[in-house]
Amino acid sequence: MRLLLISNSTNAGEAYLDYPKKELGDFFKGIDEVMFVPYAAVTFTYDAYLEKVQARFSELGIRVRSVHREANPALAIMSAKGIVVGGGNTFRLAQMMQREGLVEAIRLRVTDEGIPYAGWSAGSNMACPTIGTTNDMPIIEPATFHAAGLIPFQINPHYLDAHPQGHAGETREQRIEEYITVNTNVYVAGLREGCMLRLEGDRLSLIGPRPMRIFRWGELPREVNPGDDLGFLLQQPLEG
Amino acid sequence: MRLLLISNSTNAGEAYLDYPKKELGDFFKGIDEVMFVPYAAVTFTYDAYLEKVQARFSELGIRVRSVHREANPALAIMSAKGIVVGGGNTFRLAQMMQREGLVEAIRLRVTDEGIPYAGWSAGSNMACPTIGTTNDMPIIEPATFHAAGLIPFQINPHYLDAHPQGHAGETREQRIEEYITVNTNVYVAGLREGCMLRLEGDRLSLIGPRPMRIFRWGELPREVNPGDDLGFLLQQPLEG
Repeated sequence: MRLLLISNSTNAGEAYLDYPKKELGDFFKGIDEVMFVPYAAVTFTYDAYLEKVQARFSELGIRVRSVHREANPALAIMSAKGIVVGGGNTFRLAQMMQREGLVEAIRLRVTDEGIPYAGWSAGSNMACPTIGTTNDMPIIEPATFHAAGLIPFQINPHYLDAHPQGHAGETREQRIEEYITVNTNVYVAGLREGCMLRLEGDRLSLIGPRPMRIFRWGELPREVNPGDDLGFLLQQPLEG
Repeated sequence: MRLLLISNSTNAGEAYLDYPKKELGDFFKGIDEVMFVPYAAVTFTYDAYLEKVQARFSELGIRVRSVHREANPALAIMSAKGIVVGGGNTFRLAQMMQREGLVEAIRLRVTDEGIPYAGWSAGSNMACPTIGTTNDMPIIEPATFHAAGLIPFQINPHYLDAHPQGHAGETREQRIEEYITVNTNVYVAGLREGCMLRLEGDRLSLIGPRPMRIFRWGELPREVNPGDDLGFLLQQPLEG
């Protein structure tokens, strides 16, 4: 299986999708066309989203098609050479992907046929077993919280250590501690901005300038670094 | 109908449930016992939650019972003199309240019989039509996003203007703009920390030191202040 799961499209103050461009180019080397899923867009059009993504992928020599322009989105996934799922609102993305039958189609192509899957933010959430570690507002109710389950652990994208001063709401770490209290058998990986996870077969690598924070029920949170062995994240959890 | 919907239990640096104590005392005047719903607690026990809330309500001369100690929680709601729903994780709260049949019981008692309902944070979310404007992580999947619907508009508790510097994730305002883009017929009230909404019959009042930010599809966000007429929030939305 081949995955590139990116925390965020864009670092603050940088151009859209700029920082992960080199890794995207390396990941999709030899592939001249990918199928894009723009459904996480809420406050801008799918056409506008496609245009932004195509602009960056053009620099990599890759043509971007989008499922929203296909008569049958699930069928378009079935013939894709590569799959790209963009960020935005995870609940909207899940609801639309479920409605259009994309979750099953993507799972089949990626797990059985080795078609490469790249996602960022909500697109990384959709690669997890569930959408339960998204940061997004639940603006619409999906049919289920189950996502594509391409990996056996949860990613929290945009993982954040800071907390607005004087604010009484939960920190990100507290939110994830709530998650593992209710979901005791699964790892959560706090993927900081500017970072990504790349899976090639059974080898999982952290790429980026920051460590990743690992949470699991009954264990103290800990940091892992690029180069560390992340094989423990790929073990199927026991039923919990 | 009588509601007291509080943004947050506790202001940063203050004692638990301290700032709304005076309003809670005024709201429950003449009532010597309330039924507490502790199900939003995740990382601490219901007993511990009850103890914390009882400590504060004792200062008001009010005994707090909790549904988690009742053989039949829904039946306990049916005989309650007042209802208090505490904060924590909104998804967990919704899932448990739905499972125990509390949503319907509370709607009946509060809307038909005028039993006073006070909630903070997740407890305020549950008074809305849906849980769609919570800030919480979706750590567990409730049966439905529909909440008690005691009011016809959505509250975003802990409403926050600040945004961590250098972070690329969505601001709160952007999240609510996503919500109203998908839910075009409903008002969202951004209720800042330290503030609450009190409904007495058909009179809705904002109480607290900060204005409240109002969002609706097709309108510019605007601020309302304590003393302003908030009747527009109580109009039933057209089907959208």
